[in-house]
Amino acid sequence: MYKINDNYLKLPGSYLFSTIGRKVGEFEAANPDKKVIRMGIGDVTQPLAPVIIEALHSAVDEMADAATFKGYAPDLGYEFLRSAIAENDFKARGCDISADEIFVSDGAKCDSGNIQEIFAVDNKIAVTDPVYPVYVDSNVMAGRTGTYDAAAGTWSDVIYMPCTVENGFSPELPAERPDLIYLCFPNNPTGATITKERLQDWVDYARKEGCLILYDAAYEAYISEEDVPHSIYECEGARECALELRSFSKNAGFTGVRLGYTVVPKDVKCGETSLHALWARRHGTKYNGAPYIIQKAGEAVYSAEGKAQLGEQVAYYMRNAHTIHAALTELGYTVSGGINAPYVWMKTPDGMSSWNFFDFLLEKANVVGTPGSGFGPSGEGYFRMSAFGTYENTLEALERMKAL
Amino acid sequence: MYKINDNYLKLPGSYLFSTIGRKVGEFEAANPDKKVIRMGIGDVTQPLAPVIIEALHSAVDEMADAATFKGYAPDLGYEFLRSAIAENDFKARGCDISADEIFVSDGAKCDSGNIQEIFAVDNKIAVTDPVYPVYVDSNVMAGRTGTYDAAAGTWSDVIYMPCTVENGFSPELPAERPDLIYLCFPNNPTGATITKERLQDWVDYARKEGCLILYDAAYEAYISEEDVPHSIYECEGARECALELRSFSKNAGFTGVRLGYTVVPKDVKCGETSLHALWARRHGTKYNGAPYIIQKAGEAVYSAEGKAQLGEQVAYYMRNAHTIHAALTELGYTVSGGINAPYVWMKTPDGMSSWNFFDFLLEKANVVGTPGSGFGPSGEGYFRMSAFGTYENTLEALERMKAL
Repeated sequence: MYKINDNYLKLPGSYLFSTIGRKVGEFEAANPDKKVIRMGIGDVTQPLAPVIIEALHSAVDEMADAATFKGYAPDLGYEFLRSAIAENDFKARGCDISADEIFVSDGAKCDSGNIQEIFAVDNKIAVTDPVYPVYVDSNVMAGRTGTYDAAAGTWSDVIYMPCTVENGFSPELPAERPDLIYLCFPNNPTGATITKERLQDWVDYARKEGCLILYDAAYEAYISEEDVPHSIYECEGARECALELRSFSKNAGFTGVRLGYTVVPKDVKCGETSLHALWARRHGTKYNGAPYIIQKAGEAVYSAEGKAQLGEQVAYYMRNAHTIHAALTELGYTVSGGINAPYVWMKTPDGMSSWNFFDFLLEKANVVGTPGSGFGPSGEGYFRMSAFGTYENTLEALERMKAL
Repeated sequence: MYKINDNYLKLPGSYLFSTIGRKVGEFEAANPDKKVIRMGIGDVTQPLAPVIIEALHSAVDEMADAATFKGYAPDLGYEFLRSAIAENDFKARGCDISADEIFVSDGAKCDSGNIQEIFAVDNKIAVTDPVYPVYVDSNVMAGRTGTYDAAAGTWSDVIYMPCTVENGFSPELPAERPDLIYLCFPNNPTGATITKERLQDWVDYARKEGCLILYDAAYEAYISEEDVPHSIYECEGARECALELRSFSKNAGFTGVRLGYTVVPKDVKCGETSLHALWARRHGTKYNGAPYIIQKAGEAVYSAEGKAQLGEQVAYYMRNAHTIHAALTELGYTVSGGINAPYVWMKTPDGMSSWNFFDFLLEKANVVGTPGSGFGPSGEGYFRMSAFGTYENTLEALERMKAL
């Protein structure tokens, strides 16, 4: 008999957001009269900006004409998009990243899940705790995480770096040396940020210890404060020790459009081996490029009009974030995030567990949030509220929470 | 120091089509006056059909309006598409496959590359020889194939099932029992097909021996003869031992649009474990769904208008295939395929090696084909011609070959 990858069987329960989806679905089926407000999964609600719609229509028209029709895309993505990315996301910020170091993909979730493939199974990973579940789960599937301690909610071969109220949600350099370090700033789920100086410490540490940093900057568009780096390549030496993952989901509302990219600088080398070559091989063998029309939509993000329209969209969501932050603070909750990120991170009241608070809020207020414990053991007793709803729904959800 | 997945380093050279792309690029740069005709990579050239364009525009408009905007897609794909697939590709052919056994993806190449992940590393794979390179390469990357014999062009832990003129390009049941069997019919690269009776032998074998068949039916739309199965689920018992991979690239010209799907029947079990659950977990953790607008385009493929328009598109390419087949036969080449598949498979003349013939044809006729040896050792001495060009280019390429 053939054999399955039994690392999959070690995974406890289903993917966090699938579980939430199922619970909400069941509640709605049982309560068809209730209007549920979703502030759980980080899904956007504003329609695509006019400039994006225009780019999509125009690219669709190109596909209708043999003279402009596009088949398979280049492995790394179209030059027009990679150049726009290099220019706007990096060179404009003084980061030395060139177009051919950018790998366009169908989203940062896929890249986060797939990137671990190019590393050996016996690398040790370090993650902040709480953390975006994909980093850990994809390493579990690869057999890199040891055994699961269900009581603690931790894996024996994973280094956890707690982020709590006590350390301002900023992880300490780990006591034990990891091989691969996942960092995400602005952070999902806590909404915390890191200063440039502090990020430089991580880069210095990685170079000194021979670690690789996988830096997830999917939420960089939400940074409003100075001294918060938009890219890890703002730090000296990061070209040698860091990959960066980026998404169009949150800055341009592409959750259902699917576009992202990963930066693999040519200076990142493990001995003689260039990670750029490995990731290029992975892309060439197992991926076939993001759709042309979607890449054209991505290009429009960087036009002058695109920047203006998407700046407004980000501002719309950030008004929600500020509103949530203010209202929950007024209600007496302990609240953080929401300044440089579209997530507000709150302590559950009265020592309730995260999932109990999830059930309570769903049942009593018909509001969906994300239980902090779903992001890791240090998330227990916390709850994530997303600012990606409509302003009206956000206000109504907060009204309902006031009435609890 | 962190460690890379050194299975990647075992891969000889780059991905076949990347190598071809590079060679053609170099030739064009050196010969800017020459008009190169591409019959190498299986990329389509006809524009998207009007019904697809219409569906895309209409879906883009939905994304412009908050009331109809779509964010993250459901993990498995939208119900409207999965139902259309189940109804048209399976139920209409008497195959018992339901919508919730279909996993929509961004293409069969990705699925072909990713599917091996849900199996243990110590499974032994069997492939036809020649074969689509992704099956083998993705298993090499996972460490499942042993060591490479550069002289023979084979891996020590892979079972090769030769398909040559001698056996009519139809593989024999393997002497040694494999765990996972990759089959592709109509075949890429040989264009050969399998009868329903013969495919039933494979299903019976897999059930008896505890093997799993990974059946790639990406070219099923090109089947013109009776008694050639369109799906492995036309065979009795296949629901217990086979997954099927499908693509919209060739039947609807979606190479640059990116849409495919994998069928995982709920009856496929390895002991107690349902492969459906494993693949669902993989989708949920490492993938975020195909774009909504692309899934709407996929739905249009199954409309009455879609079927009519795409039937014409397939007929257009098949006229090319017949023309290539006839012309090469007349020129004295040994030719097969091109009847139920958009590929013509020819013997190279005068015992030339596949790559020598590739270089010869590129240089002398400025025509690009695919060297058979790129698909495996039994492909040496063969050459693949694709029917996906325009009719005019196909005629011109054949004229040039006549003049050699």
